[in-house]
Amino acid sequence: MIIVMGHTATDGEINAVVDRVHEIGLKTELSRGEERTLIGVIGANAYAYREAFSHLSGIHEIIPITKPFKLASREFRAQNTVVDVGGVKIGAEEVVVMAGPCSVEGEEMLLETARHVVAQGAKVLRGGAFKPRTSPYSFQGLGEAGLKMMAAARDETGLKVVTEVVSPNDVEMVARYADILQLGTRNMQNYALLQEAGRSGKPVLLKRGMSSTIEEWLLAAEYVLSQGNRGVILCERGIRTFETATRFTLDLNAVPLVRELSHLPVIVDPSQATGRHSLVGPMSLAAVAGGAHGLIIEVHPTPNQALSDGAQSLDFAAFDRLMADLRRLLGAMAKQLA
Amino acid sequence: MIIVMGHTATDGEINAVVDRVHEIGLKTELSRGEERTLIGVIGANAYAYREAFSHLSGIHEIIPITKPFKLASREFRAQNTVVDVGGVKIGAEEVVVMAGPCSVEGEEMLLETARHVVAQGAKVLRGGAFKPRTSPYSFQGLGEAGLKMMAAARDETGLKVVTEVVSPNDVEMVARYADILQLGTRNMQNYALLQEAGRSGKPVLLKRGMSSTIEEWLLAAEYVLSQGNRGVILCERGIRTFETATRFTLDLNAVPLVRELSHLPVIVDPSQATGRHSLVGPMSLAAVAGGAHGLIIEVHPTPNQALSDGAQSLDFAAFDRLMADLRRLLGAMAKQLA
Amino acid sequence: MIIVMGHTATDGEINAVVDRVHEIGLKTELSRGEERTLIGVIGANAYAYREAFSHLSGIHEIIPITKPFKLASREFRAQNTVVDVGGVKIGAEEVVVMAGPCSVEGEEMLLETARHVVAQGAKVLRGGAFKPRTSPYSFQGLGEAGLKMMAAARDETGLKVVTEVVSPNDVEMVARYADILQLGTRNMQNYALLQEAGRSGKPVLLKRGMSSTIEEWLLAAEYVLSQGNRGVILCERGIRTFETATRFTLDLNAVPLVRELSHLPVIVDPSQATGRHSLVGPMSLAAVAGGAHGLIIEVHPTPNQALSDGAQSLDFAAFDRLMADLRRLLGAMAKQLA
Amino acid sequence: MIIVMGHTATDGEINAVVDRVHEIGLKTELSRGEERTLIGVIGANAYAYREAFSHLSGIHEIIPITKPFKLASREFRAQNTVVDVGGVKIGAEEVVVMAGPCSVEGEEMLLETARHVVAQGAKVLRGGAFKPRTSPYSFQGLGEAGLKMMAAARDETGLKVVTEVVSPNDVEMVARYADILQLGTRNMQNYALLQEAGRSGKPVLLKRGMSSTIEEWLLAAEYVLSQGNRGVILCERGIRTFETATRFTLDLNAVPLVRELSHLPVIVDPSQATGRHSLVGPMSLAAVAGGAHGLIIEVHPTPNQALSDGAQSLDFAAFDRLMADLRRLLGAMAKQLA
Repeated sequence: MIIVMGHTATDGEINAVVDRVHEIGLKTELSRGEERTLIGVIGANAYAYREAFSHLSGIHEIIPITKPFKLASREFRAQNTVVDVGGVKIGAEEVVVMAGPCSVEGEEMLLETARHVVAQGAKVLRGGAFKPRTSPYSFQGLGEAGLKMMAAARDETGLKVVTEVVSPNDVEMVARYADILQLGTRNMQNYALLQEAGRSGKPVLLKRGMSSTIEEWLLAAEYVLSQGNRGVILCERGIRTFETATRFTLDLNAVPLVRELSHLPVIVDPSQATGRHSLVGPMSLAAVAGGAHGLIIEVHPTPNQALSDGAQSLDFAAFDRLMADLRRLLGAMAKQLA
Repeated sequence: MIIVMGHTATDGEINAVVDRVHEIGLKTELSRGEERTLIGVIGANAYAYREAFSHLSGIHEIIPITKPFKLASREFRAQNTVVDVGGVKIGAEEVVVMAGPCSVEGEEMLLETARHVVAQGAKVLRGGAFKPRTSPYSFQGLGEAGLKMMAAARDETGLKVVTEVVSPNDVEMVARYADILQLGTRNMQNYALLQEAGRSGKPVLLKRGMSSTIEEWLLAAEYVLSQGNRGVILCERGIRTFETATRFTLDLNAVPLVRELSHLPVIVDPSQATGRHSLVGPMSLAAVAGGAHGLIIEVHPTPNQALSDGAQSLDFAAFDRLMADLRRLLGAMAKQLA
Repeated sequence: MIIVMGHTATDGEINAVVDRVHEIGLKTELSRGEERTLIGVIGANAYAYREAFSHLSGIHEIIPITKPFKLASREFRAQNTVVDVGGVKIGAEEVVVMAGPCSVEGEEMLLETARHVVAQGAKVLRGGAFKPRTSPYSFQGLGEAGLKMMAAARDETGLKVVTEVVSPNDVEMVARYADILQLGTRNMQNYALLQEAGRSGKPVLLKRGMSSTIEEWLLAAEYVLSQGNRGVILCERGIRTFETATRFTLDLNAVPLVRELSHLPVIVDPSQATGRHSLVGPMSLAAVAGGAHGLIIEVHPTPNQALSDGAQSLDFAAFDRLMADLRRLLGAMAKQLA
Repeated sequence: MIIVMGHTATDGEINAVVDRVHEIGLKTELSRGEERTLIGVIGANAYAYREAFSHLSGIHEIIPITKPFKLASREFRAQNTVVDVGGVKIGAEEVVVMAGPCSVEGEEMLLETARHVVAQGAKVLRGGAFKPRTSPYSFQGLGEAGLKMMAAARDETGLKVVTEVVSPNDVEMVARYADILQLGTRNMQNYALLQEAGRSGKPVLLKRGMSSTIEEWLLAAEYVLSQGNRGVILCERGIRTFETATRFTLDLNAVPLVRELSHLPVIVDPSQATGRHSLVGPMSLAAVAGGAHGLIIEVHPTPNQALSDGAQSLDFAAFDRLMADLRRLLGAMAKQLA
């Protein structure tokens, strides 16, 4: 349920409504717009309590939310959410490029990559230190040592850092090093992790589950948002279908559709979605032409020697060509790189 | 099996190889390039006969084809196939827009649409006269009367005509009116129809089966090509997945991948693939940015009144905005509309 | 729309209603039950004409059919349809086993197989003479010569014959040899073929499309039924999913669900659905325990030498074990083999 | 890598091999069979170290494992694993029925259900206290209070208790009350949780991820097994496909296939897999006929009033009919209920 306050509602009227919600035992989520304040009322069957507000002043109308997601919906917030990561704005008109290796494999390769991608216009460094691997016998990442390398690369290059967290117990530690917490496709419905990440206050990059519907994805975002964390960035990374010629099927329909349904920014991961480096360039351009707010791309100095996902990583020359193509494309769309 | 002739092979040598293939009971498909001539040898287990050519002169090498598709493969033909439809070239650098109503509903609405889309730069008029409908109780199209209306619209506007054929028995009749025969997603593995369309000699627009792999799609193309018909245009139109928020999932990965695997042109149908008119614009731009050679788009004067698929049809104003966006995008890519 | 006649309605009253329907330009489909006669009224928007019957006598009630399939629905016919194939009853309490090679490869192997399976209790011989193959270069079947071998095997063994037809032009010819026309998974939405098979009057075995929903499958049945052909046997044969460890995913949920939604018999093809001979036995038992009216099983004298689908064919010994297990299972369910 | 010791290998020889493995920094997993002892060597690239064992005595052969799962594989253990849960044996010839409500909603309804199902022959009580719900606004379960109710029901009825754990931090607490820890479909690749559950030493019921391949499922089992926990019970509960007429598609192919690939027991959840109570009976029988070692079934005193998943819960009368059918079926298969 959303309580829409009138244009002329005072702070006192707003507070009175909020207090009443809390008395009933429900939670609130305030959205102060230029014209109006909206009060999201959160809790099962909130709409059943609407009579409890009938005597309060300043209320314009009370809207039941039929969509299962509330805080993530366009109805709750009409204007786009822009997530500000230390000055890098995700969700605004500029397109943000995040780039880096699949896994942090060592200090030197990470720094070499970071220096290269920042020079080409990337704003965020990606790199996995905790890797959720299908097999317990695969390389699982360097752990905290990898995080320290990421932080060192940030200090040198000024890039922001995005990296995955795979367990609620690691959230606090990862949040000490990262600017954005990545929640991976296998953990999109790991609700304990979503809530802990939400409570951290850090921006969260929420990858779509490989077999999650768009509605389930927005409901996962709702788990983060309902902890009071507004900084959710959605990331389409391919879904599982019958087609095996590519690693996953990139669902670009989801980009404009999510932008209709939600105010949250949405970026695309063409590396995971294709699993083939030769498709990363075309799908990056397609994603941005289709309305994505950013890209997250795997880049490796020597893809053939990568410990994970080498087949889908760009080498430096391919990354440079992509960035040049991207600038041209954005120029035609009257946009630019962040 | 492909027999690669040497640079200096004479016509006599080429003919001798071809004759030998025919003696064995296999078929040939010649590809004369600027540098070399390739002879595709078609038939089960062709490679088993390779010894039969050992005494012939002018042969550079004999290559078994491990991919199940042969004539459709890049190995068989390195340069892109350009399908020339009465001067409209599909598969070249220009992007071709096909537009029109889902179904031909009447003469007036068809002409009104044709006049509008040609003025905006479309080159081909789409419109269904024979509609394969899931229910036997749905509108099945106007049949030959609809084809006559399409032909009349061509006469007035100069647009080429693409329309679907659903039965081998109708191929000859539809081919009298159409410039391109469309084979729909439900018929992608209707082999009798594929072969009959192949024999017609008309260019064939082959839509991907909604649950067909890329390999199966290229093998369906092979059925047409193996009838001696080179004019196959592939069309990605969305695949069936678990996601129901959109009608189908547009698989844009398929565009650059098909261009790697095959020399055939590939276009995209964003209307069928999304089922929502608000997504048609973004997905059209995404398709072209990802490398599609063309688009086929549903346009209707009054989508709310359409007999079929109104929800995914653009009205004239939305089509105009799309064409303007498309020109800007192509400019940035140093391409243009056909 | 279904017009339900009263218990006491006379033939004259029934005929008057039927005549009125025809005057309006709609079709009828009569279902005479023990207690009542139902008149199915077929055509788009039939329910809009319900006022036209208000002055006729003998009508109990007029029911709009909200399900898109009408003639196939349980609402139209409450009791199970039993398809009688020359005395072999499909859809009754007995379970019918159809068995034979994937393809008819020659007279001897076919006769050997037929003699074996009939001795074990099979009632219908399966075998493909026209094979819809993904590749144009694969073995496509023996054609009419294969049909003649099937007919000869019937003459000797008394088995009924089921075989696939792939083109509307072949329906008449195939119907001369076959007792049941099989429509394959790739042709489930080949509407010209469905209608032609419907008009033949022969029982039709309608395989589910590998990516067809249950609703689409019943609508495909509707295409056959709406030609006046009541003899439709549904066949679940596996659907395409992300799982590639088996050739398809056998959807046994479909068996009891189809029995709720429709009066038509439903059988299962565990050979196509699994692609692995070791799974055919367990899935046959599962299908029958779940309520299937029959099974269609690939059996080959020497599976390793089969021209198609050897990996999923049972040899004679495995078939014998399956039949013994099946008899035990049916005994527990108070059923028996046909 | 698996080191196969000779028939006559002594304990001293076995210990020497184990010690050598540990020196190298790899882990071991011993399997003492009647004839031979197998030593599983666990760690990335273990096979690269095979030379290190060339001078040790008593070794029959060293086998690289090409399957990505090792401890879960039939190659590692030929005989079936039987998980003994306080005397209830899962994986043996007897079929084990687990039954109870989707969620524990209160003490009375739980006890009423427990008393009913134990009287009918169930051996394990299911019931969720921690529910992973798609929406943060849905009922999330009673938490530890629910676990106490489960334990009380065990004390009264003698049923064993299976219940879900959703966070690694809860494993210890849930393990104090439960006999079997359930890992749900959304958490199948929550590796932190898998490992923590593995370390608990409690038997683990591992549900298949709704979009997980069989290989990924066995690799998830490997995460538990590699913690030294042998008590893994697999549970097929339906996969996500394009078909929406049922909640999921029950993949019964997986039952006999998993039994080929692995020694672990496999049970089936027909309630989750169908989402329709009318399909639960037929699919239960199908699962057991196909080789499942057990069933886990939702039963509720008044399904219409259930807080979650009422549509798929059996009422008592339907459960009784199912148990009677099951006994008849097992009789025919020369098996029985546990």
